[in-house]
Amino acid sequence: MKIAILSLFPEMFEGFLQASIIGRARREGLLDVTVADIRPYSDRKHKNTDDYPFGGGAGMVMTAQPIVDAVRDMRARGFSGPCVYLSPRGKPLTQAKVRQLSQQDGLVLLCGHYEGVDQRAVDLVVDEELSLGDFVLTGGELAAMALTDAVARYVPGVLGSGESTVEESFTDGLLEYPQYTRPRVFEGLEAPEVLLSGDHARIRRWRREQSLLCTLRVRPDLFAGAPMTEQERQSALDKAKEEGSCCSEG
Amino acid sequence: MKIAILSLFPEMFEGFLQASIIGRARREGLLDVTVADIRPYSDRKHKNTDDYPFGGGAGMVMTAQPIVDAVRDMRARGFSGPCVYLSPRGKPLTQAKVRQLSQQDGLVLLCGHYEGVDQRAVDLVVDEELSLGDFVLTGGELAAMALTDAVARYVPGVLGSGESTVEESFTDGLLEYPQYTRPRVFEGLEAPEVLLSGDHARIRRWRREQSLLCTLRVRPDLFAGAPMTEQERQSALDKAKEEGSCCSEG
Repeated sequence: MKIAILSLFPEMFEGFLQASIIGRARREGLLDVTVADIRPYSDRKHKNTDDYPFGGGAGMVMTAQPIVDAVRDMRARGFSGPCVYLSPRGKPLTQAKVRQLSQQDGLVLLCGHYEGVDQRAVDLVVDEELSLGDFVLTGGELAAMALTDAVARYVPGVLGSGESTVEESFTDGLLEYPQYTRPRVFEGLEAPEVLLSGDHARIRRWRREQSLLCTLRVRPDLFAGAPMTEQERQSALDKAKEEGSCCSEG
Repeated sequence: MKIAILSLFPEMFEGFLQASIIGRARREGLLDVTVADIRPYSDRKHKNTDDYPFGGGAGMVMTAQPIVDAVRDMRARGFSGPCVYLSPRGKPLTQAKVRQLSQQDGLVLLCGHYEGVDQRAVDLVVDEELSLGDFVLTGGELAAMALTDAVARYVPGVLGSGESTVEESFTDGLLEYPQYTRPRVFEGLEAPEVLLSGDHARIRRWRREQSLLCTLRVRPDLFAGAPMTEQERQSALDKAKEEGSCCSEG
């Protein structure tokens, strides 16, 4: 899979490209992630890439020309697949969208900055606008890294033995159950006895219950839409009224 | 503001800490962002920080001891404020939460990895669990960067002249209107005439209309909850039926 990332701040990607699973996947040739600087594509004398917004208002707008030329150059260099503009004006990223994008041969990710990009660049070269969520970032760089990381997890061979894509939050529409590992007692707190019982059916039941309960407490929106039996739903609602919590609710 | 970030992959933060507004804010002393490696806190001989989950299952779980000791050491080193664990099991980050956290003197951000952290570490030292959104990342590092970036924007002096916190997506519960800058015509596409009219009342009206329309098309969930007059609501619903789009809908 080939991913091109277009940014005014390519140096922001240094740690991300070297470290953790992305670094390993690149070294092993599983993933080609190329970060290209938008600035050299500017046809202005001083390589400017922004200008005042028509109609006034605070901030600067990224001009269309360097963006359009950079995307076209990436296309000429063999980066195919949808051009995704990371922007707070996009649809929020979901795991279903990540899975869909991971089936592409490539992606071209455009990172905005300042007050956004000239809408004509979006109209001409962008296929899709995605947002990380309902909060404002300085630019699209961190969103592009998050999308690259999330997509890379689906590329065969990228995940090592310490990681898994199967039993994870959101794959069944629920938050994950709490995890425990050694020691059995830590600072007076015991791991739940059921997890040490060796009774796999009981462990599975407990984890399912905990998933349902955490989801109800932290994400009632997900709970409402997640597939479950009527008995599971009622049981979670009853338990939620009792004392104690498996989750930090903030 | 002092932000401590605890991670098993501190090298991932290199580009982030140097570049863009975070780099500038740190150099100007507006923000103290310290990334600490969790591994040296491990009391095991080979500095292990993970182990197999009790009860079985794929992946590894981060052990409680190094995390708890790392957070306590950060406290001793003067990092105050809530300890936030970035995790897909948390509440989704919103701009309201960003604003609330930006009013703290400090933050301690805990980045998870693998299948999560031992729940007892969460119970002992974590005040709040936050998620970037409904997608799975390799670890909490990119989420911690996003939260740091979003919070930093509220620290006085951090934003330069090219940026603004006022006229931005989500501050009025709507997506931002499309932006245009020079040239007036780009590859045959004209900037909307109204933006060049100099008529500020008309520009304001057009932008409000566009905001409402984009929000209705891309984020009907936000549109439903945003404050607007009944006339604005009806007008956006009527316009949405017409041809043309200001937004990439993917």
